[in-house]
Amino acid sequence: MTVGSLTWLILHGIGTCAYAASGAFVALQARYRLTGVFILGLTTSFGGGVIRNTIIGVPVIKLWDKDTLLLVVGTLTVLYLWSSRWIHQWKRWGLFFDSIGLASFSLQGALYAGQYTGNVGMTVMAALFTGIGGGVIRDLLAGRKPIALLEEVHAILTVVVGLAMWVGRDLKNHNVLLLGLFTFVVVVRMYVIGRKSQTLGERYNKSSQ
Amino acid sequence: MTVGSLTWLILHGIGTCAYAASGAFVALQARYRLTGVFILGLTTSFGGGVIRNTIIGVPVIKLWDKDTLLLVVGTLTVLYLWSSRWIHQWKRWGLFFDSIGLASFSLQGALYAGQYTGNVGMTVMAALFTGIGGGVIRDLLAGRKPIALLEEVHAILTVVVGLAMWVGRDLKNHNVLLLGLFTFVVVVRMYVIGRKSQTLGERYNKSSQ
Amino acid sequence: MTVGSLTWLILHGIGTCAYAASGAFVALQARYRLTGVFILGLTTSFGGGVIRNTIIGVPVIKLWDKDTLLLVVGTLTVLYLWSSRWIHQWKRWGLFFDSIGLASFSLQGALYAGQYTGNVGMTVMAALFTGIGGGVIRDLLAGRKPIALLEEVHAILTVVVGLAMWVGRDLKNHNVLLLGLFTFVVVVRMYVIGRKSQTLGERYNKSSQ
Repeated sequence: MTVGSLTWLILHGIGTCAYAASGAFVALQARYRLTGVFILGLTTSFGGGVIRNTIIGVPVIKLWDKDTLLLVVGTLTVLYLWSSRWIHQWKRWGLFFDSIGLASFSLQGALYAGQYTGNVGMTVMAALFTGIGGGVIRDLLAGRKPIALLEEVHAILTVVVGLAMWVGRDLKNHNVLLLGLFTFVVVVRMYVIGRKSQTLGERYNKSSQ
Repeated sequence: MTVGSLTWLILHGIGTCAYAASGAFVALQARYRLTGVFILGLTTSFGGGVIRNTIIGVPVIKLWDKDTLLLVVGTLTVLYLWSSRWIHQWKRWGLFFDSIGLASFSLQGALYAGQYTGNVGMTVMAALFTGIGGGVIRDLLAGRKPIALLEEVHAILTVVVGLAMWVGRDLKNHNVLLLGLFTFVVVVRMYVIGRKSQTLGERYNKSSQ
Repeated sequence: MTVGSLTWLILHGIGTCAYAASGAFVALQARYRLTGVFILGLTTSFGGGVIRNTIIGVPVIKLWDKDTLLLVVGTLTVLYLWSSRWIHQWKRWGLFFDSIGLASFSLQGALYAGQYTGNVGMTVMAALFTGIGGGVIRDLLAGRKPIALLEEVHAILTVVVGLAMWVGRDLKNHNVLLLGLFTFVVVVRMYVIGRKSQTLGERYNKSSQ
């Protein structure tokens, strides 16, 4: 996988924007305004990367390339300007964006850790903490219990990603594995949420009061 | 700007002590005692620096020089011993110290990022997250929603600092720019708070219950 | 002290498992389930190490050696499977494990900082923040005020550890000092908690509602 390829674009660009959007939705739900939308958007979208770079020992400043930053700020501006239309659809769209972020960041964590260590335990740990990190920081800043801790499927999927990436570490066609896992995580999570959304929604919203 | 100059003293020494004081005030408000005053004071005053150093990739241990540590511990000891006199004046003094910390840390963040990257986006991001970081950690430890997310002017001022530091990066007389921005942030924030303090105070105190 | 010695085993292995157990207890109290037990267990047991390594500037990935990871995951699995039996004994066992983690991590922090700097202030700071760090992150993730901020004896013991490690830095028989301090911290904390547990328990449980 090389930077600039389609796969990298999905993992990095789309994942970062999706987590930015989920941060904006949670900020609006917590009744934050302009500042809250941007700060929660930025911390959710870059939080996973901060954790990933801290784990590996790469300076965090390398995260903020000009293009990604512009993309995130653009996404947040659009969401903020249209916020009156979106706010009531958090349940559907907010969790969809959260799933995309979860998939892309857990894949990135597994990818980096696999390259640095080749160890199965560390690959799983990096997938887990890079995948859920941005969302956990987002929920703490909004004053609610992290959804990653309330929802069982969330962390289990990142563990599956870590294991699959370790098993398939010598595959020739790596991109197929990445896109397959990406789709698998998003579909499974949306399916499970669809079945349990009422129970979870109650626990999640209760924790934010 | 060299370490030891008047400007550095204001940015580093006064800023660190001011954030220490704001941590002590929030701890007293959250009904913490001795331990809470010192831990919140230390995390608020060093939190911004931890974030700044993590971003750039400098070990955090370099933060704790003997003199700054003595100054912070001295400030906290005085505030703790006189706490019965200060506690009812949080609104005025606590927010004043918070403003000084905000000004000095956002300037430090912009300064470091500017030297390392020269990129406008990263200078603004470093000003934002170094400026608000200590206060956000302080509020989370006290169990309340971060004031940086409730109050619009807070983050906007750090963005102004980041932009101004980038525009003026080639100025000969850098110290005038730094002192000017420092004064600008403190004055604007205290003015805005003075006008809106009732509304904000209600939202902020409500979030801590 | 060499890695693999009895003293290192107590500091690192037992301390890590003890903090993992305390994370699992807090997760069960916060009504988290499988995911919560594992994530809180992992963050509590590795959180102190993350802070310690960030302070010194060592990549966090070096924390996760295979054996420690297996030990932590094993501990958490046993606790989860037997959780129905343990949950009502948090007051006694949870605080006992928390004390062992506190003792071992504050000793580790003092040991590393002493080797890197030899400065008394930094040794105390590293003992304090490495000692309480894992527990503070655990409590924030569970949505309650950190016990380290509510309980006076907690932080004071880490400061005593930092000072004693600095005073005894040239001792020939370092292991006796380490084991002595370890026992001292656990015994003093359990004694103080035994006397004050009702008051503290009320404040701590109140903060988690």
